[in-house]
Amino acid sequence: MDLQGYWMNHKEKVDKALQDCLPPEHTYPAVIFQAIRYSLFAGGKRIRPLLCIAAAESLGGSFDQVVSAACALEMIHTYSLIHDDLPALDNDDYRRGILTNHKVFGENVAILAGDALLTEAFHLLSHPDCLREVSAETRLALIHHISEATGFYGMVGGQVMDVLSEGKEADMDVVHYIHSRKTGALITASVYSGAALAGASPQEMTALLHYAAEVGLAFQIKDDILNVEGEQERIGKGTGTDSSRGKATYPSLVGIEASKRRLQELLEESLAAISSFDEKADPLRQFARYIVERDF
Amino acid sequence: MDLQGYWMNHKEKVDKALQDCLPPEHTYPAVIFQAIRYSLFAGGKRIRPLLCIAAAESLGGSFDQVVSAACALEMIHTYSLIHDDLPALDNDDYRRGILTNHKVFGENVAILAGDALLTEAFHLLSHPDCLREVSAETRLALIHHISEATGFYGMVGGQVMDVLSEGKEADMDVVHYIHSRKTGALITASVYSGAALAGASPQEMTALLHYAAEVGLAFQIKDDILNVEGEQERIGKGTGTDSSRGKATYPSLVGIEASKRRLQELLEESLAAISSFDEKADPLRQFARYIVERDF
Repeated sequence: MDLQGYWMNHKEKVDKALQDCLPPEHTYPAVIFQAIRYSLFAGGKRIRPLLCIAAAESLGGSFDQVVSAACALEMIHTYSLIHDDLPALDNDDYRRGILTNHKVFGENVAILAGDALLTEAFHLLSHPDCLREVSAETRLALIHHISEATGFYGMVGGQVMDVLSEGKEADMDVVHYIHSRKTGALITASVYSGAALAGASPQEMTALLHYAAEVGLAFQIKDDILNVEGEQERIGKGTGTDSSRGKATYPSLVGIEASKRRLQELLEESLAAISSFDEKADPLRQFARYIVERDF
Repeated sequence: MDLQGYWMNHKEKVDKALQDCLPPEHTYPAVIFQAIRYSLFAGGKRIRPLLCIAAAESLGGSFDQVVSAACALEMIHTYSLIHDDLPALDNDDYRRGILTNHKVFGENVAILAGDALLTEAFHLLSHPDCLREVSAETRLALIHHISEATGFYGMVGGQVMDVLSEGKEADMDVVHYIHSRKTGALITASVYSGAALAGASPQEMTALLHYAAEVGLAFQIKDDILNVEGEQERIGKGTGTDSSRGKATYPSLVGIEASKRRLQELLEESLAAISSFDEKADPLRQFARYIVERDF
């Protein structure tokens, strides 16, 4: 399988599907749709939609079967970035090499664009024209899973702890809490969504969620390492920012070398979790390697 | 029917149900649950949950049948207030006579508390232990309707226009756009929710949505009038604030007297919309009168 081509092709199809989810440009009131499009098409890697699709395909499911869920996951991810970047939170001026949403549209519109994207994700997940191949029960379970992963027990809870622990002594429990919720929960929910929509058996779901947990943690540890070591131009945002803010990270607690060893272990564990899957899971395997080896 | 007792009793039951929706106090990370409880139990009138319940009861439905939807609607309303009060939006220090969420917990926690409440509303609407008397299809349609009413075509769209039109010449079209979306959409969605969960016929639904549209507009016009005429202590927030911000309102466009006449017309139209309903709709009728006659 030409995996490079596979990813590029899928990423383009996700971008197209996201365009189709939104009303035409200049729909009234135009500024909210401009703000939404600005961040939704700001060069995101589409990690969550691609994981959702690859999980479905690993079980014989199709792109079309899950694309609406994939788009909803990217909307939730984008909302979380817009709100995280706000002056009251991380106060970032740049993301992916361009100005953050509030620097372009103002804090008021940025807050509302995030609110609209979060709401639109649930609008899409419940839309009568979407996800028509599965039962209403499965869709309801999907909405429940995604909202749990992104609410106060999940992503928002992780973000709260991240904000509260800045500049304080933090131990590995706190760092693990933040990692598993702030990033891990939505990555796991992405794999869950693809698997659930493709009709995963309980055993397949267990294996895939195990894979997702390792990949999610690896993703965050790699991000932390890149924040210490990466080049600003490649990452598109400042490096060394975690340290200057007194953010507790994996490298700050155990050091860079131990972090890199842990990353390798997580890669091996994630591959082991899906070792019984056939070649349809190769994109998931390549994805895990990409997470660990990427340099931005 | 002792309608005064009916409302007090239902309001208490809604408050209790909202308490039961949330995890125990001091659940980790405690600050987010403190911030959520602070605004959720800050003396709200529970207009949206009570409308949802009264709409269901007007068709023979029960409190228990719809209470989870009623709580979700109040969570969405509360999230919108927390975000609207932020410095980047309305910059209000007080609401209902007490400090706004961000004045107590900081802007970072207030933004996240709003995000969590919005997400939790969908978590509740899709929860396997809630709304068990209706089909998964009906619940999915409910989530779709509520997310449409609160997203960029609804509440958030109205808020965007409200923000953008501050200090600018606005005509009646813009004021109507803001009113119908910023306040009207969630009020209509509340009536829709109760009616849909109680199995409304298409004719009943049409009548109830007509009622809701009139009541929603009356509610906003009354709010605008109170902002001009009301006493600060009774309303719990500043008066004259719309005018000093250059907000376009119904009274600023047509004057106080014409606004009051329109209010009376809306009351009569809302009552006419449900004139064929029996005495089970008396709470809805009293509710419309309360909206128009309240002095805070």
